[in-house]
Amino acid sequence: MDLNSDLGEGFGPWPMGDDEALLDIVSSANIACGFHAGDPSIMRTVCGLASSRGVAIGAHIGYRDLAGFGRRDIDMDPKALADEVLYQIGALDAFARAEGDRVRYVKPHGALYNKAVHDDGQAGAIVAAIRAYDPELPVMCLPGSRLLELAAEAGIPAVAEAFADRAYTPDGTLVSRREPGAVLHDVDLIVERCVRMAAGEEITAVDGSALKVSARSICVHGDTLGAVAIASRVRAGLDAAGVPVTPFAVGAS
Amino acid sequence: MDLNSDLGEGFGPWPMGDDEALLDIVSSANIACGFHAGDPSIMRTVCGLASSRGVAIGAHIGYRDLAGFGRRDIDMDPKALADEVLYQIGALDAFARAEGDRVRYVKPHGALYNKAVHDDGQAGAIVAAIRAYDPELPVMCLPGSRLLELAAEAGIPAVAEAFADRAYTPDGTLVSRREPGAVLHDVDLIVERCVRMAAGEEITAVDGSALKVSARSICVHGDTLGAVAIASRVRAGLDAAGVPVTPFAVGAS
Amino acid sequence: MDLNSDLGEGFGPWPMGDDEALLDIVSSANIACGFHAGDPSIMRTVCGLASSRGVAIGAHIGYRDLAGFGRRDIDMDPKALADEVLYQIGALDAFARAEGDRVRYVKPHGALYNKAVHDDGQAGAIVAAIRAYDPELPVMCLPGSRLLELAAEAGIPAVAEAFADRAYTPDGTLVSRREPGAVLHDVDLIVERCVRMAAGEEITAVDGSALKVSARSICVHGDTLGAVAIASRVRAGLDAAGVPVTPFAVGAS
Amino acid sequence: MDLNSDLGEGFGPWPMGDDEALLDIVSSANIACGFHAGDPSIMRTVCGLASSRGVAIGAHIGYRDLAGFGRRDIDMDPKALADEVLYQIGALDAFARAEGDRVRYVKPHGALYNKAVHDDGQAGAIVAAIRAYDPELPVMCLPGSRLLELAAEAGIPAVAEAFADRAYTPDGTLVSRREPGAVLHDVDLIVERCVRMAAGEEITAVDGSALKVSARSICVHGDTLGAVAIASRVRAGLDAAGVPVTPFAVGAS
Repeated sequence: MDLNSDLGEGFGPWPMGDDEALLDIVSSANIACGFHAGDPSIMRTVCGLASSRGVAIGAHIGYRDLAGFGRRDIDMDPKALADEVLYQIGALDAFARAEGDRVRYVKPHGALYNKAVHDDGQAGAIVAAIRAYDPELPVMCLPGSRLLELAAEAGIPAVAEAFADRAYTPDGTLVSRREPGAVLHDVDLIVERCVRMAAGEEITAVDGSALKVSARSICVHGDTLGAVAIASRVRAGLDAAGVPVTPFAVGAS
Repeated sequence: MDLNSDLGEGFGPWPMGDDEALLDIVSSANIACGFHAGDPSIMRTVCGLASSRGVAIGAHIGYRDLAGFGRRDIDMDPKALADEVLYQIGALDAFARAEGDRVRYVKPHGALYNKAVHDDGQAGAIVAAIRAYDPELPVMCLPGSRLLELAAEAGIPAVAEAFADRAYTPDGTLVSRREPGAVLHDVDLIVERCVRMAAGEEITAVDGSALKVSARSICVHGDTLGAVAIASRVRAGLDAAGVPVTPFAVGAS
Repeated sequence: MDLNSDLGEGFGPWPMGDDEALLDIVSSANIACGFHAGDPSIMRTVCGLASSRGVAIGAHIGYRDLAGFGRRDIDMDPKALADEVLYQIGALDAFARAEGDRVRYVKPHGALYNKAVHDDGQAGAIVAAIRAYDPELPVMCLPGSRLLELAAEAGIPAVAEAFADRAYTPDGTLVSRREPGAVLHDVDLIVERCVRMAAGEEITAVDGSALKVSARSICVHGDTLGAVAIASRVRAGLDAAGVPVTPFAVGAS
Repeated sequence: MDLNSDLGEGFGPWPMGDDEALLDIVSSANIACGFHAGDPSIMRTVCGLASSRGVAIGAHIGYRDLAGFGRRDIDMDPKALADEVLYQIGALDAFARAEGDRVRYVKPHGALYNKAVHDDGQAGAIVAAIRAYDPELPVMCLPGSRLLELAAEAGIPAVAEAFADRAYTPDGTLVSRREPGAVLHDVDLIVERCVRMAAGEEITAVDGSALKVSARSICVHGDTLGAVAIASRVRAGLDAAGVPVTPFAVGAS
């Protein structure tokens, strides 16, 4: 199983999260590319830290919206979006290569992620950018998302991810954050679910039914101290269960 | 002889210059990378137009200052500057590669260009970024500039350029724009000087003395209608004199 | 009748439109405030030119999106939007006051204008900002828009505008730009319609029916040479018909 | 004596410092205006908190450089700088007025502060902006700075500030941060010096000589937990010594 987390989300004088602590936990690093967060020096530093640990470098692409942290829908023309995605991938790849590695995968951030789940135009723009850059570069998103479907049609490796701390509906989608119980806080339960998902076993959906979540990676958060502690527990749980935590991306370690 | 010009200097809704006209004149395109001008869609369009004409794609790197068009000194830490340069080169390279080519050289813009002529810290940052990205990528600047000296020491190809419409001092530096006669306006004279420089012959310095300007490329401007007309006349003059106008950068055409 | 137009839409090195020509035509200037276009020096210059001509200064507020020129929907939280609107009004007012005048009205731009027509949250945010700044400051938008309705409810002067070159549906809304005939190009017809609207007479809707458009201001465009010529013809037509062209905003001339 | 501190220095998703804690300590708040830090919602929130506590609102103006936090010299044209300063003052004043108060003074930040100490062009630009906005608005800077001299010549109230935790040379300038001992860390000593300065008594310069520092305000820092603790101790020391801590700016409490 792969563990992924968002990293390099500071900007200029403002830090965010504990990148070094997370890089000792995860196997894949979604690194912000300067549009919703991240600046060139942060990008280079995190690429260097990831590369030296064998953590796979992923381009965490987002809308150009520092003030909104990429969490606001922007109604972008797909052609313009594809160009913005290509710009971000290329910029991050320069740092990855300067640190002896390269960008191993692409994952959309925030509002772009949510749009890519169901919006053909925005999802297609991401696929177009990846095809233009390197059609062998995997893209990561929700199972069943339009992004993964369009990627697969285009011959781009499509990687499904699960969320460690989110409740699932019986049909395998995430319970909306607006619903009660959408986010799990019981660390033991979170760890147990991750181990079960890694072992290919069923977990319990929000209605109590059994659910099989097929995912090649599990997303853990790291933007708070508590989040890092949970991520650390998830990693320890997987280690204890004998589940190897390794990048899904080829050649990354 | 190579002819180079600044291109892709629009941003969002604001165009600048006539990129297509210039691309039929020059052999090397200094393409803005989004920090002082240029946006992802403009970068991709200009890369495509350049690539299809065999015009070499150069990364026209600048300070992060859209409002000031990169023409204001910013006292940047060399480490941070090297990271910003690397970011810009990587971003442009993504578009060059998407259009079947790649970035062939690097040239600083505006205030960064002027700083790189005499400031070791800023010049060294550019060299460090190029080394980290690809040490075989040439860098273009003034003959005798610290940038070209440091590049040569680092094993990076150093390409000297001349300016078609600028007066020279007897020791081969540019007459300051604050001095009268710094910029030439007589088109016939401009063309004649370009042809002489291309032939390795002497031109006349501002004090009337003879001067040999060694340059592998001549910079022509294109930000006004008049400038495009002058560039066109320079190209026609070189063609008429039997001087092949070709990119200096390897593999670009 | 008042004539209004968008002005000050350059940014940094990039000009847009012919502000001086338009300021001799219109009575109200919608001046960009730096979020979708405009920079401090442009804002000050245009405020000075408007003030000296007795043209009313309006805050042309927009989404923070220079790259998209404020033409892309951004799904902003109403509270955050109200704060961004307040920021823009205050910034422009500083220039208006430095030039001996003050901001006389507010008009949303681009995507924010379209949102404010039907979206209570975005329209309400604009109203909240105006109330916080100065409840006597009029707001301008489409007749029947939610923005004008909410403004009226809040006791803010609501000013309806017509568009010189747009076709109308029988119920008085604009024909969508996606429909054929949405934009009028026959200058004589445009002028005739403006004169009729100014005289309180009916114009012809897109289906041939007669339509009364109640508007206190007519919007003319100025972003192209042709647009300035049309605006100039509209002004000449109103002058010839004896219609005084004066700002709707109190105290502006 | 007045105590001032930098506040509202977060941006978008990134907080900085503990604004609420500091607002219970200081009497004047230097609030970032969105160019080097601060966003509209932060500006409004801090204005509201300051206003409700009787803390004077100051416009903490800076270079347009979020990535560099306004700490990098930018070689700005004085006319353009004056316009950027005016923009920032107007924007902040909108929030101050929305919260029932108004901007009470102006203080430059970071690189602009340092430039304003000795550079006539940059200092003069700040003075020009204040004159254009409201010549009765005080400006705060180092005693003996060009900014205060030019302000006084222009009839603008000039307010000198001291620094709680900085060593002084015998002639009353700050010991450069590059020198050892430039920053004081002994909290008892810092408090004692502040009380002495407030009482008009001499403090000890870095060479052991006695020095009289004439200042109407003392600057305390708040960007770290330790800094807030020191500021709190300074306030308690002044209170214990019977020194009233009140804003210097008229009408602010």
